[in-house]
Amino acid sequence: MDPELQDILKDFPPGPLSEYRNNASFNWKDMCLLIQGKDALVLKHKIWSTLEKDPVFAHCATKPTLKENRLLTLQRAQKLAEYNFMPAKNLLQKPEMLDSVVMAIGQLDWSSIVKLQLLYNFVISALYGMGTERHFKEIQRLMRREIGACFCLTEIGHGTNTKAMRTTAKFDVKTQEFVFHTPDFQAAKCWAGNLGETATHAVVFATLYTPDGENHGLHAFFIQIRDTQTFENLPGVSIGDMGEKLGLNGVDNGVMLFDQFRVPRAALLNRTGDVSESGLYVSPFKDKKKRLGASLGTLSAGRVGIASMATANLIKAITVGIRYSAVRRQFGPEDSNVELPVLEYQLQQWRLFPYLGAAYVLINFTRTFRKDFIEMQMAMMNKEDPDRLASVGAEVHAISSFAKPLSSWLAQQGVQECREACGGHGYLAVSGLGSVREDNDANCTYEGDNNVLLQQSANWLLNLWSLVQRRQSVAPYTPLGSAIYLDSAESILKSKCKLDTSQQWFEPQALLDAYQFAVCHLLRSTANRMQQLMDQKMDAFTAKNQAQAYHYRPLSIAYGETLFLMRMMRLLNDPNIPEQLRAVLKSLTALFGATNLMKHLSALTQGGYFQSNTSAALQTAIEQLCEKLKPDAIALIDAVAPSDFALNSALGHSDGQVYRHLEEHMASSMKTRPDWWQQVLLPPKKTSHL
Amino acid sequence: MDPELQDILKDFPPGPLSEYRNNASFNWKDMCLLIQGKDALVLKHKIWSTLEKDPVFAHCATKPTLKENRLLTLQRAQKLAEYNFMPAKNLLQKPEMLDSVVMAIGQLDWSSIVKLQLLYNFVISALYGMGTERHFKEIQRLMRREIGACFCLTEIGHGTNTKAMRTTAKFDVKTQEFVFHTPDFQAAKCWAGNLGETATHAVVFATLYTPDGENHGLHAFFIQIRDTQTFENLPGVSIGDMGEKLGLNGVDNGVMLFDQFRVPRAALLNRTGDVSESGLYVSPFKDKKKRLGASLGTLSAGRVGIASMATANLIKAITVGIRYSAVRRQFGPEDSNVELPVLEYQLQQWRLFPYLGAAYVLINFTRTFRKDFIEMQMAMMNKEDPDRLASVGAEVHAISSFAKPLSSWLAQQGVQECREACGGHGYLAVSGLGSVREDNDANCTYEGDNNVLLQQSANWLLNLWSLVQRRQSVAPYTPLGSAIYLDSAESILKSKCKLDTSQQWFEPQALLDAYQFAVCHLLRSTANRMQQLMDQKMDAFTAKNQAQAYHYRPLSIAYGETLFLMRMMRLLNDPNIPEQLRAVLKSLTALFGATNLMKHLSALTQGGYFQSNTSAALQTAIEQLCEKLKPDAIALIDAVAPSDFALNSALGHSDGQVYRHLEEHMASSMKTRPDWWQQVLLPPKKTSHL
Ligand SMILES: Cc1cc2nc3c(=O)[nH]c(=O)nc-3n(C[C@H](O)[C@H](O)[C@H](O)COP(=O)(O)OP(=O)(O)OC[C@H]3O[C@@H](n4cnc5c(N)ncnc54)[C@H](O)[C@@H]3O)c2cc1C
Ligand SMILES: Cc1cc2nc3c(=O)[nH]c(=O)nc-3n(C[C@H](O)[C@H](O)[C@H](O)COP(=O)(O)OP(=O)(O)OC[C@H]3O[C@@H](n4cnc5c(N)ncnc54)[C@H](O)[C@@H]3O)c2cc1C
Repeated sequence: MDPELQDILKDFPPGPLSEYRNNASFNWKDMCLLIQGKDALVLKHKIWSTLEKDPVFAHCATKPTLKENRLLTLQRAQKLAEYNFMPAKNLLQKPEMLDSVVMAIGQLDWSSIVKLQLLYNFVISALYGMGTERHFKEIQRLMRREIGACFCLTEIGHGTNTKAMRTTAKFDVKTQEFVFHTPDFQAAKCWAGNLGETATHAVVFATLYTPDGENHGLHAFFIQIRDTQTFENLPGVSIGDMGEKLGLNGVDNGVMLFDQFRVPRAALLNRTGDVSESGLYVSPFKDKKKRLGASLGTLSAGRVGIASMATANLIKAITVGIRYSAVRRQFGPEDSNVELPVLEYQLQQWRLFPYLGAAYVLINFTRTFRKDFIEMQMAMMNKEDPDRLASVGAEVHAISSFAKPLSSWLAQQGVQECREACGGHGYLAVSGLGSVREDNDANCTYEGDNNVLLQQSANWLLNLWSLVQRRQSVAPYTPLGSAIYLDSAESILKSKCKLDTSQQWFEPQALLDAYQFAVCHLLRSTANRMQQLMDQKMDAFTAKNQAQAYHYRPLSIAYGETLFLMRMMRLLNDPNIPEQLRAVLKSLTALFGATNLMKHLSALTQGGYFQSNTSAALQTAIEQLCEKLKPDAIALIDAVAPSDFALNSALGHSDGQVYRHLEEHMASSMKTRPDWWQQVLLPPKKTSHL
Repeated sequence: MDPELQDILKDFPPGPLSEYRNNASFNWKDMCLLIQGKDALVLKHKIWSTLEKDPVFAHCATKPTLKENRLLTLQRAQKLAEYNFMPAKNLLQKPEMLDSVVMAIGQLDWSSIVKLQLLYNFVISALYGMGTERHFKEIQRLMRREIGACFCLTEIGHGTNTKAMRTTAKFDVKTQEFVFHTPDFQAAKCWAGNLGETATHAVVFATLYTPDGENHGLHAFFIQIRDTQTFENLPGVSIGDMGEKLGLNGVDNGVMLFDQFRVPRAALLNRTGDVSESGLYVSPFKDKKKRLGASLGTLSAGRVGIASMATANLIKAITVGIRYSAVRRQFGPEDSNVELPVLEYQLQQWRLFPYLGAAYVLINFTRTFRKDFIEMQMAMMNKEDPDRLASVGAEVHAISSFAKPLSSWLAQQGVQECREACGGHGYLAVSGLGSVREDNDANCTYEGDNNVLLQQSANWLLNLWSLVQRRQSVAPYTPLGSAIYLDSAESILKSKCKLDTSQQWFEPQALLDAYQFAVCHLLRSTANRMQQLMDQKMDAFTAKNQAQAYHYRPLSIAYGETLFLMRMMRLLNDPNIPEQLRAVLKSLTALFGATNLMKHLSALTQGGYFQSNTSAALQTAIEQLCEKLKPDAIALIDAVAPSDFALNSALGHSDGQVYRHLEEHMASSMKTRPDWWQQVLLPPKKTSHL
């Protein structure tokens, strides 16, 4: 084996998981290399082994208090910056590796990497994207870590509806300054990570007014908010901390109010619009909407990243859930003294394996989509064909708008299922599942609320549908091919499912056919529904609100899941894949597709694609695929699991020694009595009980 | 109004919720009395107003550490015992009021009431149920709170499979003692609440051996484990604390190992089996299985209680989710400056209202089922007709076996949906949703893992089905009527749904018809599937494992949801209900039924009840019912919401002043710099960044 990999792809010690491992139909090491890629693998293990040796990253024996957690997270973020796992030159060469860095550190501790990213990287790309030369020196200061920043878009009263932000920035010609003001508490900037206790600077979005009183809409500024020597708030700035959250408590999300706070003219990030010394507004964009769109465009990178973060969480949870299920024995045949691992039960497989499939599907999807995204960025830098670029941009937006919601939900549901699948012991903090659930939950909300975001994909599809209706090709508008099948919509909508055996559903192509039907059917019915409502003289806003639940929402989901499948099939069709790996990946893809397709049953039957009995074979296929994947489940986990240090779970350790780890954990707590034991024995005051 | 209610059913101050309140189609106070009942209402408010004045129950400004939490919870439990909200004489008169006490305290703080219940009540009923006269003095000591106990069934290696417990208790004739021993760590007792740091005594389940070496199976003992003066472990007993959990951290779940630990002969809870002084085993039951069943039977009470606990959690979450959605405004029509409350969006309604429906359905269900349960207990005490009693017992078991899973899942999913529905602010600890999610999660696992438990209901149904197949009436075996419709299975299975307009689905009866079809179809197909597998010479255990996912599971769920509907219709058919209340309850029931029925689409189409297009009208009905319920949503919440003190949510307060409460919360954190501010500005060591 490649010597670089020798230390990483080590055989596991014999133990409770050996039997499953020995029965696998493929070599987990090959799978590991195929699905993760060597570069990512090497980098991740370098990160984990480095941090494992660093006492700052040692697992906390008891849960830190909020205050302790904040300081620890700061120290970790600083340490991470020093380790510099992704130096600038590597980043340029292999930008996709950044996801691996974030995933590897995040699987260990989300707060520290989120904090670090927000302090420097996130703001640096915002300055690159929205600023001009005059902001380069700020970028340099950030790179040297002389200053640290936060990103302030959300206000107490507004999150999703960015256009309605109410913080104002009025230009004062006399002093050549912008005057920032927060009219009331609802207009306070909030939620910005690092704002509460760490940032010296901030990217702040505010409504720009020129001296003539004209409102030029939302603009971004890079401003200083705290003194870099004393760390006191600058006069005119009030900052608070948002306090305890459901998760990510190492990050200090803050709230900020301005009271006629003055910042230099140069603070405006002026790539898409500027104010002259004399107070005139100048912009290359004539249309306000387009300008805002262009400046918010830089944010869509965040969604691509969150899809990876969610994937990392799902991997962690499913590793714990499946390994524990292979060790945990409960019940057995009447005539036997040996109990079965709970993984042997159909129900346990049916609950967990679709999420195992989801983990693979998402790993593959986020890797390929990251590549698309990077190509788009390159093309933008090289100023390639602007028409094509606009199409790519719109399609990337449509894709990222389902990728973040679907992946964060899959992770959230998967973590919950794994928690329950581990029974009582899953409820122990040492299962490691609690923090995954808490931290992942935020992925459903930030960078665009999942439910609102999802509607964006449908909007894009509806635009394509109008082409279909006019019998024009959608090809120029789906350069990434995510909706290319709409060109065959007419014949797809006429097709009927002819499958009647469960085996036929083992073919991902069969599932893809069904999915493409579902998308076409939902798209047609959504367009019809909108037309019908508009015919009733309803405005577009109201009409859309009447079509959210059973039109927009399932449409976006079906479109997204279809692309998940398409990308997986691209991998399966790669002629270089070893046959054994292809076989198991095919089953995994089919299981993922089939389980999720069942949720679109109403579209499939209403559209006439499914006959009344078609779903029966599909259900049988799911049962059979579970059974088929059972011997491979542990090897599939081994190929994607983080290191034991990063996983940090008594139930999910790769040695399968669940009970030994639980015993070690509890040994430390074997004790005689609590400090306050005398209070337990307090003489009762009354003789009654509740 | 009834003077007792004047203080409880107060008008709300004008504010952001007024508009919705004014538009409601009914009087929330009438609904409150109808759905909760006057007695429960008065008792709950007495509890909340008492605790609100007690500093021990003041909300913690910062999250307590594990240690602080444990002590605080102990103090609260002791305080609750002193308040004695449910004195023994009331408990005898109105035993169903105990649920209200638990719900009211639990909505404020689950740990303290769980701790209290386990310390005394739970063990007292175990001693009543499994012990004899010789344990009365122990009951008295518990009632006087001289001692406190825990309940130790689960072991590290076994939870669900109780028969496989491995702690042993061997009788020693010489000393007339039982010798308790834990062979290894996997046999350690664990998870028992109060064991970690509080209990002096324990109900312990162990395998009983007589001196002749015979194994008599699992038996319960009441034994002392700590010195009541020094609180040290008794020699031969080691106790540990299980440490941090995902929730319920005020409760000290413990782990315990015995090393040849001796307890007096009288410790055996000997109602169903005893050991004579000479070491002979004597039991009124000949069949070991039956004896175990009888002694574990007392546990099913716990499930009835958990259904109420889950209901209390769901109510709390949905109160926050819906009130916040009515206040939170985001987006609006193009031509308007006013943004709409997010409750106006179809998607938000569709996400939340089914859980509002679930809250009502569960309140009604748990109330009526508690009555059935109490009647059964009375009948048992009065030793009524044993045949009927056996049938009632089996049916109660079948019902509690879905009631706990379905209610705890509805709560878990509902809390998650509400968390997301509140956007970013829902992720703040002050939303109150985090602790509900964490604490409720345990309800999915203890007192029987949800997934395993659910199979019990299906088992019972399959027994009835064999009667149906022999054309015998099931009536004698379903005295509570939960499955009485199986007597018409033949005609039900021949029926077809004839509805084609959405309005027809507004009738709960239409939904009930569809549900009964689904149950009959799933029952028939499960029985067929089992027959088919057994015909292949598969043993029953293995066959059942092959039919869990698409047979047992959906069957139990459909049966459960059908009973939810039936109980709701019993309420709707009560001629004394004011017409306005009936109307809105009917819509709520229909929405709950319709949303959940959609999950059984595969059974309905495969069985031929639904035509390919039937589900379209059902979906439209759901959209329309959401729209219809919108003006009533806030009043429906007002009728079930806990007091603001118990709710303790900045987002869900009854005054609707979301932003004021958020401001108050953050005002306390407006500050200049953290203690460790100098560390933030640490001079950077390298010039690179991640
Ligand atoms: C941990 C965390 C970190 C964050 N970090 C930052 C940060 O660094 N900087 C920053 O600026 N912000 C940050 N945010 C804020 C985040 O971006 C917002 O919370 C997010 O955009 C959602 O907006 P909102 O909270 O206003 O939700 P809202 O828009 O108020 O949504 C509330 C509910 O209404 C629904 N809804 C809204 N509009 C519609 C519609 N048209 N149709 C149907 N339903 C609708 C939503 O689905 C949601 O359920 C952070 C948030 C969190 C939780
Ligand atoms: C907060 C809390 C408090 C508790 N308090 C107490 C207490 O006071 N006293 C006490 O004695 N115990 C207590 N318990 C323990 C609790 O009763 C058990 O955890 C519970 O019964 C589940 O058992 P288990 O953990 O062994 O799960 P397991 O039986 O190990 O289940 C693991 C998984 O296997 C699945 N599974 C098991 N068998 C099958 C099958 N045949 N078919 C399909 N799937 C299967 C389950 O669905 C589950 O997903 C407590 C637990 C918790 C979390």
